[in-house]
Amino acid sequence: MKWARGKTGDGTEVTGVIADDMLHPRAHLGSDAPAGDPIPLGDVTLLAPVTPGKFIGLWNNFKEAAEKGGHAHPEHPLYFFKADTSLCGPGASVELPASAGRVVFEGELGIVIGKTCKNISLDEARSAIFGYTCINDFTSLDILNGDPSFPQWTRSKSFDGFGVAGPVIETEVDWRDLTIRVLVNDRERQSYPASDMILSPEQIVSCLSRDMTLNPGDLIACGTSIGARPVKAGMAVEVVIDGIGRVGVTMSAPPD
Amino acid sequence: MKWARGKTGDGTEVTGVIADDMLHPRAHLGSDAPAGDPIPLGDVTLLAPVTPGKFIGLWNNFKEAAEKGGHAHPEHPLYFFKADTSLCGPGASVELPASAGRVVFEGELGIVIGKTCKNISLDEARSAIFGYTCINDFTSLDILNGDPSFPQWTRSKSFDGFGVAGPVIETEVDWRDLTIRVLVNDRERQSYPASDMILSPEQIVSCLSRDMTLNPGDLIACGTSIGARPVKAGMAVEVVIDGIGRVGVTMSAPPD
Repeated sequence: MKWARGKTGDGTEVTGVIADDMLHPRAHLGSDAPAGDPIPLGDVTLLAPVTPGKFIGLWNNFKEAAEKGGHAHPEHPLYFFKADTSLCGPGASVELPASAGRVVFEGELGIVIGKTCKNISLDEARSAIFGYTCINDFTSLDILNGDPSFPQWTRSKSFDGFGVAGPVIETEVDWRDLTIRVLVNDRERQSYPASDMILSPEQIVSCLSRDMTLNPGDLIACGTSIGARPVKAGMAVEVVIDGIGRVGVTMSAPPD
Repeated sequence: MKWARGKTGDGTEVTGVIADDMLHPRAHLGSDAPAGDPIPLGDVTLLAPVTPGKFIGLWNNFKEAAEKGGHAHPEHPLYFFKADTSLCGPGASVELPASAGRVVFEGELGIVIGKTCKNISLDEARSAIFGYTCINDFTSLDILNGDPSFPQWTRSKSFDGFGVAGPVIETEVDWRDLTIRVLVNDRERQSYPASDMILSPEQIVSCLSRDMTLNPGDLIACGTSIGARPVKAGMAVEVVIDGIGRVGVTMSAPPD
């Protein structure tokens, strides 16, 4: 099933299921209860599919990137949070602030949490995962490495629009089958298999639930692999995961 | 004025102003519109005074601590986010998970944002600050420094209950006059003047607003100074800022 969140012409935000080119409103994420008449997709602007209480991003979770960087495989996720205000959805214009300097795209698989959980096992983690979405975890390299005393993971990844998610949450997909790709101006620039992950989605969720309570709608970006590249104003940058969908944004310059 | 958030006997959450030992409900934080009859404080359990979209914490923002640690003064805030689920209020029991190892208290001044703002000046920042609260930014030192490849600022500070805030937001106080103190079992263990800050609240808010949009209720912990110490199960740990109030919690062991 494909879940999405959208805005209708009158500004109402709706969460529901996509079927037959319609958005079928539901009471909340994962609910079976209808919450209004189906809306033609053409009348809906898709938003990021959730508004997460926590927007978690992992570092160093792909074997090929770890080998290239000379990093040991972590036994527990290494992570940061992205700002709530970094979240954006399909079709957004993402401004590149002058202060951000060099910014790279990072195509990633996103896990959406479906239930409140704490200290859960791998088996329980499997059922706590509601589904998967596409993420672009934009990162300012200049800011990340700009202060020798303090790596700025939070700041470098939290500019408005630097957390792209969407277009949908796919609930019926095996993550092992997925390939994460990024297209820049329609040209493929990143492509790697989800199966190269160091910690699996189930391991990630189980481990994170030992650190903190996870809640429905929490979003976990599984980290990127090799192939992240700089972006510039005017570029169209699209994360494509066949089996889920594609979420594209346009990079823009700040106003003069 | 002292703003607070509380839960009544029937579980309703109320935001309002404290006066005459009553909580006077308001439509929302900062609103002049009454939203119900005053409730005797004795009938209210105080909660953290806001539920922030962003719970930001600064590192290295006090001169005495910077000198002791040999750190240069930052020109821009160095920060991390704490999890939404780390938030707790007055009287909470804060569990010390075995995995957290050594945990220290960090008494801090908290800034509460009053309006949506982006790219604002120092003058505008002054009016974007709604008020101040007391923060205890509990931190696991073992986790912070546990992985040589990645300092775990987020994880070390995000266990459930590791972000204490309250008891109120004081809107009529000059931060330069404040002293941040921590009492452990009623004995003073940390005490430092807010005036020793490197970046002032106005500078912090102006700088952060250049990184990301800030929203009403966002909470910024200004960083701690020297004197943070380990805590153990059974300890009563209280952050006291005369002119604002005192927020105390009890440390607890995990269930067997």
